[in-house]
Amino acid sequence: MALTQREYGQAREWAWNFVQRSGLPLLEEEISGLEVADLGLGELQTTGLQILTLAATEWLGAKLLILQPHQFFPEHRHPPNPAEGYPGKTELLRGQYGEAFLYVPGDPAPQPKVTPPLHRRTWCTVWHEISLAPGNQYVCPPNTWHWFQAGASGAVIWSISSKVTDTADQFSDPQVVRQTRIVENSP
Amino acid sequence: MALTQREYGQAREWAWNFVQRSGLPLLEEEISGLEVADLGLGELQTTGLQILTLAATEWLGAKLLILQPHQFFPEHRHPPNPAEGYPGKTELLRGQYGEAFLYVPGDPAPQPKVTPPLHRRTWCTVWHEISLAPGNQYVCPPNTWHWFQAGASGAVIWSISSKVTDTADQFSDPQVVRQTRIVENSP
Repeated sequence: MALTQREYGQAREWAWNFVQRSGLPLLEEEISGLEVADLGLGELQTTGLQILTLAATEWLGAKLLILQPHQFFPEHRHPPNPAEGYPGKTELLRGQYGEAFLYVPGDPAPQPKVTPPLHRRTWCTVWHEISLAPGNQYVCPPNTWHWFQAGASGAVIWSISSKVTDTADQFSDPQVVRQTRIVENSP
Repeated sequence: MALTQREYGQAREWAWNFVQRSGLPLLEEEISGLEVADLGLGELQTTGLQILTLAATEWLGAKLLILQPHQFFPEHRHPPNPAEGYPGKTELLRGQYGEAFLYVPGDPAPQPKVTPPLHRRTWCTVWHEISLAPGNQYVCPPNTWHWFQAGASGAVIWSISSKVTDTADQFSDPQVVRQTRIVENSP
């Protein structure tokens, strides 16, 4: 499964317009840091994420996670790298705009506020619910399973973290791959 | 020199009102993370800072630096801690609201946009000018001298960093101390 160039471009344009409404000042050229992650699933509108990287160094990451209405990002964790003495990425997730919910280990929500796509739900193993409404936040420790999903309005979420190690991320769902594949538009 | 309780409270109230206008959603209870740093100088309106800490862990810091109009924060650096294998705090400074300028090593600005208090200026040794207008940002490497000052409007600046080590900060100006001393109001 892959995205067409047209789908990729449309998601990027939607995300850039949406994030302008979030109250965060952005420079025109920052659009160059905007990526679309469909996780190789080819179902971007239900599963995936738009990511605007503001900064990424050996010691920190600052990104905006931009979610389409109801868009789901699958369960994953940021594992340690013992060779570097790195315990794994610590990630502050903080709501900036719209509605989203984060799920982490702990008491499961009796009635979760969002519903993952049914064919992905089996890979959601943690159900403790954290609202990422504007101003709400949660520090996700290294190597801790978590997943999130937007409500009907879509959402912009801050991801402020220690060193970003995206390619090392582990996903519960074996269908997920970390790269987005883009193909030519179908005729 | 010290601040009176009244001065401390007034600065805190001003900062809380000002940061509400910056486009960032904040929860009412986050006011508890708002501190006033007068650096022991007792001249807060010209030299010092209001700091709203959103998160601080072993691996990251997320703060809002809130500057009164023309307020100046003296030259300092975040030194390494060899015992911990820590190179020192890496700090992303990013303009959110208002006007401020950051000064770092490099070609000095021929006509700097701001003027530090005259009796503090001698301790400003780096003069390469970076605008922290909304959306502008700069990653300040560990152990690198820097200082900043707001323009006439005041400013809100993001400080997104690796582990915060405020008490280890080194200041060029020997009069600076890292603690704010508060005294009872004078009669």
